[in-house]
Amino acid sequence: MSRALADARAPRSARASVARARGGKPRRGRATPNASPRAGARAGAGTARAVAMDGVDVVNVDLGDRSYPIYIGTGLLDDGDALRAHVAGSTALVVTNETIAGLGYLDRTVKALTAKDSKLRVETVVLPDGEEHKNLEVLNAVYTRALETRLDRGTTFVALGGGVIGDMTGYAAASYQRGVKFVQIPTTVMAMVDSSVGGKTGVNHALGKNMIGAFYQPECVLIDIDSLKTLPDREFASGIAEVVKYGLIRDGPFFEWLEANVDKLLARDTQAIAYAVERSCVNKAEVVAADEREGGVRATLNLGHTFGHAIETGLGYGEWLHGEAVSAGMCMAADMSLRLGWIDASLKERTIALLNKCKTPIDVPEKMTVQMFMDLMAVDKKAANGKLRLILLKGELGECVFTGDFDQSKLQETLDAYVK
Amino acid sequence: MSRALADARAPRSARASVARARGGKPRRGRATPNASPRAGARAGAGTARAVAMDGVDVVNVDLGDRSYPIYIGTGLLDDGDALRAHVAGSTALVVTNETIAGLGYLDRTVKALTAKDSKLRVETVVLPDGEEHKNLEVLNAVYTRALETRLDRGTTFVALGGGVIGDMTGYAAASYQRGVKFVQIPTTVMAMVDSSVGGKTGVNHALGKNMIGAFYQPECVLIDIDSLKTLPDREFASGIAEVVKYGLIRDGPFFEWLEANVDKLLARDTQAIAYAVERSCVNKAEVVAADEREGGVRATLNLGHTFGHAIETGLGYGEWLHGEAVSAGMCMAADMSLRLGWIDASLKERTIALLNKCKTPIDVPEKMTVQMFMDLMAVDKKAANGKLRLILLKGELGECVFTGDFDQSKLQETLDAYVK
Repeated sequence: MSRALADARAPRSARASVARARGGKPRRGRATPNASPRAGARAGAGTARAVAMDGVDVVNVDLGDRSYPIYIGTGLLDDGDALRAHVAGSTALVVTNETIAGLGYLDRTVKALTAKDSKLRVETVVLPDGEEHKNLEVLNAVYTRALETRLDRGTTFVALGGGVIGDMTGYAAASYQRGVKFVQIPTTVMAMVDSSVGGKTGVNHALGKNMIGAFYQPECVLIDIDSLKTLPDREFASGIAEVVKYGLIRDGPFFEWLEANVDKLLARDTQAIAYAVERSCVNKAEVVAADEREGGVRATLNLGHTFGHAIETGLGYGEWLHGEAVSAGMCMAADMSLRLGWIDASLKERTIALLNKCKTPIDVPEKMTVQMFMDLMAVDKKAANGKLRLILLKGELGECVFTGDFDQSKLQETLDAYVK
Repeated sequence: MSRALADARAPRSARASVARARGGKPRRGRATPNASPRAGARAGAGTARAVAMDGVDVVNVDLGDRSYPIYIGTGLLDDGDALRAHVAGSTALVVTNETIAGLGYLDRTVKALTAKDSKLRVETVVLPDGEEHKNLEVLNAVYTRALETRLDRGTTFVALGGGVIGDMTGYAAASYQRGVKFVQIPTTVMAMVDSSVGGKTGVNHALGKNMIGAFYQPECVLIDIDSLKTLPDREFASGIAEVVKYGLIRDGPFFEWLEANVDKLLARDTQAIAYAVERSCVNKAEVVAADEREGGVRATLNLGHTFGHAIETGLGYGEWLHGEAVSAGMCMAADMSLRLGWIDASLKERTIALLNKCKTPIDVPEKMTVQMFMDLMAVDKKAANGKLRLILLKGELGECVFTGDFDQSKLQETLDAYVK
């Protein structure tokens, strides 16, 4: 990566939008078949643009003085320029898990951080791997390491890993000494397209997922597509389910592109992956810029999540991957939407067919009962005054609503249909 | 309390100041002997004003859209109007400790909250009492209670107790479902004059005090002076030490008033207490409004705290009360200031004499070693790039500095002089 990129910290403008476009060096063909007029129109309207620099795309998340850039490219992990440009103090704490450390990514990150700047003291902490460890007890290990190594308020935390590491490190940064800076290096599809964008950080409670946390934005997100090469198929597919979500809630043309390119994606075609990650980040960044604190439209990013979180909590964290539970949850949401008469049967079928191709669950696990769903969904964060609110599909492909105003009997019918 | 007060939510102006004055009904004499021209000048300049309404003083903490009022009066606890006016949703969670609950305050608060509004569902959680319980594990009990009783994002947490309850409840509110509203009902001098004002929330870590937390402002603070009647002498005195701090760092006339009135205070004269609480709140609110996130002047509120936190952590939380440790810490700060040649010997002597009258410690506990001080002070949140920064007295009574620029040997001399 050139110096230019390292210096290219996105300006912190107050404009609540991101943009997608092409510029700088010409790049070898990107997988953009079926890119639709609608997507194009969006870019044309200036609401979505990713600026390419030296082979690296930059998506800016516009959140006023909390704006930050997402760098997307290959080989970024070993090129510390961009990363170091966002580490302000004299110390950093890299937080990762056993699996990522075992694959050599931790050593590479530390090397990239220290290669050209011997004045930066870099500490590390390695957590156990898995959603079942995303809790206060393990979080405390991060604080302990930071205190043992005497990191002060000027330090920067670096999240190296998947969604669990990103959420925990972000929350540790939000709360350590009442707030230090942090950067995200997501190493899974899920983290790249979802959890590293938008500043939701936190840990789980035994009685509910992500119930403890903060809205806290990183300094930057560094996405090295190459790091997906070591990602197990099951985790890869789980992330793609979250990618499908963006098509369903707001980007019909992207959904169509996914229908046409899902085999390429699952075969780990680098260009297809890069396009899917970029398109997902642009979609998420647009939504977050419009509604950082989830007062309205941001809730639509949780399509399938209320059902999915109930499955994750009901099974015990770590049994199913997050994207697997969301995959089943999106099928349930599509089913309920159809029962409400809000979508055509074909949309439900296409949703299930695409997720089936992704090899993520389209049914709920046998252990789940209707009562478990009702109890676990009742504590969903989106509930208001005790009333459950859901994201449901309504209208054409790419259109959805966030509402508590629906016929409760249809929810019951969906649960009855899905529970074994 | 009248409806007028309940409706008198302070306007959320962007002005970073508070003000002190008298208005509304005439009140029986307040203990304001020796109120100096300087304090008067401040009020005249519009930087400090407390508006009296129906026998209740209101100090506004000006923090833009996070501004909030502090109500100070007697009999407020049983009059739920003001409290209910700041509880927006349909549920509330009152957090308190065993001691406070045992004294009947919990029942009274629940009754005040529900007396005129049967639609409000009020849940409660009772924590163990003491600084040694201000940790993640006990905090988790608050989340558990909130989830068990299915409180959603629209709920309001109510902190009923001293500084520990206030800090923990505020942090629970900051982090439960990524943030719910909360109100403070402080029941100790310490909480009334310090911890309930300014939005510092959090818990301790085994390796450092208040190392985990957030800046998070309440909806309002309700101070019922009557609730001090049940406060043990030791805790009362500990709070007065924190009151002395305001005189030392920025309000010389108030220090002089304290010198003249400390016996009245310790004898629990209601008017003297009300004046001391109000004057302390005004001082703290002014500092917080000028520097919410502790970028500069707010750090001066920590006079004696770096030494004090080391004592608290070194002894084990709960061994000494916070104000007791701060009392010893302020003596050490005055000693070091004198060794640096920054103050007259008389100021150190007056500081020690006043704290001695308060019956709070003016020496460090025997268990503390110089090495313990050095190790524990090294992780102080005010350290920057590994360099210790301290609040020290410099100049006349009421003047101080926050600096890392001092002769290290004088720190060593102070530690040597104080450590047994």
